Amino acid sequence: MPEGLRSVSIVGIGQIPVRKASSASLREMGVQALQLAMESARVERVNALFVGNMLADDLQGQKHLATLIASAAGMRGIEALQVEAATATGAAALRMAYFAVASGEARLAVALGVEKMSGGGATQALAKALDAETETPTGATLLGMNARLMQLYMDKYNVPVEAFNDFSLNAHANARTNPYALFKDREVTSEMISASRVVDAPLRLFDASPVCDGAAAVVLTRTSEARAYTDQPVTILSSSVATDWFRVADRADPLHLYAAARSSHDAFRKANIHRNDISLFEVHDAFSIMSCLALEAVGFAEPGQGWRLAAEGVIARDGSLPLSTLGGLKARGHPVGATAIYQTCEIVQQLMGRAGPNQVPNARLAMLLSLGGAASTGLTHLFGV
Amino acid sequence: MPEGLRSVSIVGIGQIPVRKASSASLREMGVQALQLAMESARVERVNALFVGNMLADDLQGQKHLATLIASAAGMRGIEALQVEAATATGAAALRMAYFAVASGEARLAVALGVEKMSGGGATQALAKALDAETETPTGATLLGMNARLMQLYMDKYNVPVEAFNDFSLNAHANARTNPYALFKDREVTSEMISASRVVDAPLRLFDASPVCDGAAAVVLTRTSEARAYTDQPVTILSSSVATDWFRVADRADPLHLYAAARSSHDAFRKANIHRNDISLFEVHDAFSIMSCLALEAVGFAEPGQGWRLAAEGVIARDGSLPLSTLGGLKARGHPVGATAIYQTCEIVQQLMGRAGPNQVPNARLAMLLSLGGAASTGLTHLFGV
Repeated sequence: MPEGLRSVSIVGIGQIPVRKASSASLREMGVQALQLAMESARVERVNALFVGNMLADDLQGQKHLATLIASAAGMRGIEALQVEAATATGAAALRMAYFAVASGEARLAVALGVEKMSGGGATQALAKALDAETETPTGATLLGMNARLMQLYMDKYNVPVEAFNDFSLNAHANARTNPYALFKDREVTSEMISASRVVDAPLRLFDASPVCDGAAAVVLTRTSEARAYTDQPVTILSSSVATDWFRVADRADPLHLYAAARSSHDAFRKANIHRNDISLFEVHDAFSIMSCLALEAVGFAEPGQGWRLAAEGVIARDGSLPLSTLGGLKARGHPVGATAIYQTCEIVQQLMGRAGPNQVPNARLAMLLSLGGAASTGLTHLFGV
Repeated sequence: MPEGLRSVSIVGIGQIPVRKASSASLREMGVQALQLAMESARVERVNALFVGNMLADDLQGQKHLATLIASAAGMRGIEALQVEAATATGAAALRMAYFAVASGEARLAVALGVEKMSGGGATQALAKALDAETETPTGATLLGMNARLMQLYMDKYNVPVEAFNDFSLNAHANARTNPYALFKDREVTSEMISASRVVDAPLRLFDASPVCDGAAAVVLTRTSEARAYTDQPVTILSSSVATDWFRVADRADPLHLYAAARSSHDAFRKANIHRNDISLFEVHDAFSIMSCLALEAVGFAEPGQGWRLAAEGVIARDGSLPLSTLGGLKARGHPVGATAIYQTCEIVQQLMGRAGPNQVPNARLAMLLSLGGAASTGLTHLFGV
């Protein structure tokens, strides 16, 4: 831990089930997750609320969401601010709450992620994470960008498209027993993936995460006071952000995720942990190719070899590097502003030994990697018990 | 200062002139202000960039702005996140940068505010700071909300509409000699104000701040290291955020700005300063009525008496509580996401004794109050030398 930094722990989590076309409004979803997290920490009020949301200004016509939710939850007076980092927005909210507690400014802070994106318009709104002057005018989307990277990878390393199926298979297998997952109870086979619709060649429907609605929250406090709220606090061992050149076209090697590499390297250094010490890895698997490139960027595989970790079962729950252990973005769902907070909740479940049928044995250290836009923003958080 | 909190100082400032229809693009404006601030601190790189912007997703189709600007400025790798708190967004960026340094996570952090809003569509985009379910569907806007509060104040306290003119007069008098102000070199008289167009009765054109473009940035570091960058660091004595019920209609007394009162009270307590110790006050004078209500909320005047501080010259540069000393939102201009950072730059100029013809004699302590939406979010920052 850097000199003078106060240690921060998570003492409460709250999730609502990820759904398509949730009947609850955006604010109702946010308030529900917030209240579940506060009940979990057995507190009736917090000092500060940091809200991660990417799309409400476009899809619900609502800015200023943090104060709206604080007010709707009856917590007049508390600090409330909103943060955005494209598809890594939830992780940015976590970092803000971490800042607030680590700096001594807040005793109890909540990071809340909330997104309601299944009512239409999500693809265009998401594309605003790309360059509005030079990329989106040509019709660029995050999905198209990932399709290009996938093709580039297949060409460069002579890898067949089926090599990516195992990432989806793993995520769907894990989601089946997660009650909060969009695709719980659904059996997915490799044949289904290969037969699924080509959305933007070579990218198929099962290579992409679904558009959906969700909200999740975590309560943070000082580690020195954490046991007043829970018997099993989970410590945030480090938090780190790094950026890459904004446009993929400007990167010397488009298949190297520099922001992921740099933020994870920095997070490991600050926590004094080696990547091989990690019990599980919640990766930003918005697209299969991102899982593959992230494994390589962090150093778990050599360039061109990331897909082998999926093919060889390394990423399974009983493998040496369990990935997306409760379904990941692909099968739990990717309500963008909420995603990293869902992942944080799942990590807390794992480290507390409360992940039910999805439990990774002896989980002690966990890693969360969040990627914004075309991976131009990378946030890494490390957690331990 | 709270237990364990690291003291934070400002060691560089950068402003570009506020303009209508700037020929520079949003990102160019942001990069310019960022580079000016870094040159002022004599640094070529920082660890983190926190960007305040409210409207780019609507007006430029651009989210994910912090990483875009970090990349455009050539600073691949650094931390970059965006924050939003409606019209108080700039102050939220300042608080994030403060968090980053105070927590020990960043050694050098920049708070950058940037907004390009003069190309049309600003009024509708700004209204998204209100409740999208119950307020904006009825045509509610921030301007209309302020017109209602102004009428309510006039009725409740039997105050004539001309009582508000002195706030505009003071702001315009101060802007005349600020080279960065939108309305520099313009002489404004009480007759001009009273003769100006009624925009939404009783609110006249001169009671409202202008839609415009601007960018400003400040460089923060640990106070213990500040003199490595400047001979005259300015210390952030405290930073505080509070919220009110989101909708004005839900407040017991709509003329009491609870978020302003609570955040300022908390900031004074944390800095161990009395409000009467303040040398100058940069207030959120987006509308004349907000200046008046803010003076009352902070405790500088009793309810119904705030306007007298303007009428009696207390708020003038040679008064006991100089207000909006370089033109304020009204006459320097209010490019919303940038506004509080402009105010921070102006406070630094004042406390360094470099405010030129606008210098407040013996300025030692300064207060910045920022209000988001219909004053449902309040941020107070106190500064000293």
